[in-house]
Amino acid sequence: MADLPVALDAMGGDKAPEEIVAGAHRAVEELGVAVALVGQPDVLAPLAGDLEVIPASEVIPMSADPGSSVRKMKDSSLVRAAEAVRDGKASAMVSAGNTGATMGSALLRMGRIKGVKRPAIATPIPVPGSTPTVLLDAGANAECTAELLVQFAQMGSVYAHHRFGLDRPRIGLLSIGEEEGKGSTDVLEAYALLRETPGFVGNVEGRDIPSGNLDVVVTDGFTGNVVLKTMEGTATFLMGEVRSAVRGTFVGRLGGLLVRPSLRRMRRRIDPEVYGGAVLLGVRGLAVIGHGNSSAEGVANAVRVAARGIRGRLVEQFGTALASEGAERPSAA
Amino acid sequence: MADLPVALDAMGGDKAPEEIVAGAHRAVEELGVAVALVGQPDVLAPLAGDLEVIPASEVIPMSADPGSSVRKMKDSSLVRAAEAVRDGKASAMVSAGNTGATMGSALLRMGRIKGVKRPAIATPIPVPGSTPTVLLDAGANAECTAELLVQFAQMGSVYAHHRFGLDRPRIGLLSIGEEEGKGSTDVLEAYALLRETPGFVGNVEGRDIPSGNLDVVVTDGFTGNVVLKTMEGTATFLMGEVRSAVRGTFVGRLGGLLVRPSLRRMRRRIDPEVYGGAVLLGVRGLAVIGHGNSSAEGVANAVRVAARGIRGRLVEQFGTALASEGAERPSAA
Repeated sequence: MADLPVALDAMGGDKAPEEIVAGAHRAVEELGVAVALVGQPDVLAPLAGDLEVIPASEVIPMSADPGSSVRKMKDSSLVRAAEAVRDGKASAMVSAGNTGATMGSALLRMGRIKGVKRPAIATPIPVPGSTPTVLLDAGANAECTAELLVQFAQMGSVYAHHRFGLDRPRIGLLSIGEEEGKGSTDVLEAYALLRETPGFVGNVEGRDIPSGNLDVVVTDGFTGNVVLKTMEGTATFLMGEVRSAVRGTFVGRLGGLLVRPSLRRMRRRIDPEVYGGAVLLGVRGLAVIGHGNSSAEGVANAVRVAARGIRGRLVEQFGTALASEGAERPSAA
Repeated sequence: MADLPVALDAMGGDKAPEEIVAGAHRAVEELGVAVALVGQPDVLAPLAGDLEVIPASEVIPMSADPGSSVRKMKDSSLVRAAEAVRDGKASAMVSAGNTGATMGSALLRMGRIKGVKRPAIATPIPVPGSTPTVLLDAGANAECTAELLVQFAQMGSVYAHHRFGLDRPRIGLLSIGEEEGKGSTDVLEAYALLRETPGFVGNVEGRDIPSGNLDVVVTDGFTGNVVLKTMEGTATFLMGEVRSAVRGTFVGRLGGLLVRPSLRRMRRRIDPEVYGGAVLLGVRGLAVIGHGNSSAEGVANAVRVAARGIRGRLVEQFGTALASEGAERPSAA
């Protein structure tokens, strides 16, 4: 198992295929992980070097409708990558391409872990002086019932334990007030179902996400996706403001030169490419989703996340954890 | 009308009553606006100076359930403030207290503008080099139908025109992808209804909110509230990181001293207390909602927002705009 390559979708992502393949080479050299490129052989031939190429003639565009493209484009790099995992030819799949289609391919070809109603995307968010906080669902399911939210809490907790070694991850339910009565109907219902769950701290608000007081934040895929992109937009805006504030005066410019190295280190610490690599939880195989804008470094880090999941037998752990949860909490699935 | 005082809930807000009353004095001195304090006479007597006090024996706590507290606490400062507007004794109400209860009081005592299905909270968000972007709903309605989202777009557009003098505000519908097919069922339906609306630019993502490319962002109150608090949390986190990055080295510390004045000016520009004052749109009277953490400056600025709304006859403009919209777009209400 450990010798199987990671199947990397070489055609997906804003900077495909050059930066994706560069990331593959980097992962092989720096991490000693085997990587197979999935994509169009003629495009990849000049870039692949001695990396294995799994041929796939089609490419699902970044903006394509996930459902129909996955069903129709059976020879796409995403569908072939998922098949490689299903068929035991790869240990995991990694893509910086169309997120919905990555999920669709994994779901269609690998299937769900027994007991899982819907897979969810778990994204780590950097927080000061602590392990990252896992946000899920980060966009797989635009609408979620209370029952789904409860399952996301279970999956998120298993994942935070697995990835960051936390004994009893602190789980927050994202809402619009800390009090039990605040939120949408589904959130209120999920709160009631989660009340007795070990580690559950109750409702949390948007401002708590980067506070370092939580290990897992549970929400529906619409809100989760908006939250992630809002954090991204706010960070870009603020760092721009910091830069122009600093440039505004001569003294500021001088100070700016002096603080620049520190700011650059900080930016790296909060850069999704560095800490990143979201994982699709709940499918019967490992699927890692890189940022669409990933360059070689981001790709190498996504492969690193996959390698860690393989070593730690993440998917098997899920099966066990959810089977025992299922025993405690019978569901109508 | 212009001589009527603004009814200020002197008991609501984390820093009530001292900072709230201090803000009232500041508004009177700096803006020349008449302010009446609403609250417990014995508490306010030592602070009020020559300000009018509208007596109210009860205080709705920040965390109280809005619905029941507004119905039960008829002699609360919030309910009395809304009554003062309804009875023509005040030109507007302002509170930094319980947001839900502020909305509840205004709705219960003032009623809705004809044609409005549900009021919405419109919050300005600072953006670089441009007028603020109005986000609504910022928390009044945890669940929203497509029809409500469409009305929020109309109200937000009227408000952006009124407050920032924009001729044809650019309206975005918050979703999880720019393509038309992305989002929840209600968002998809709202997109179809908004397609022909002047100024409608389509779906926008979280990262577009602070981009300066939009004047109005429409979303449900759950997502809107989470977005605002996420931006707040992210800004706090990042500025903390900037500070500790700068303090980490001797050279950084020196540079930090030099950039500090610029950063402080920037913080003021993005401080909700400075640009702030959300407005409850759709009720038959003006209600301004300050940040719960408002100090005197924030209160004075919320009063300034109220005064501008009164001068510009905001509520009357709404009535006219929605009546003509209603004529174009018949509804099943």
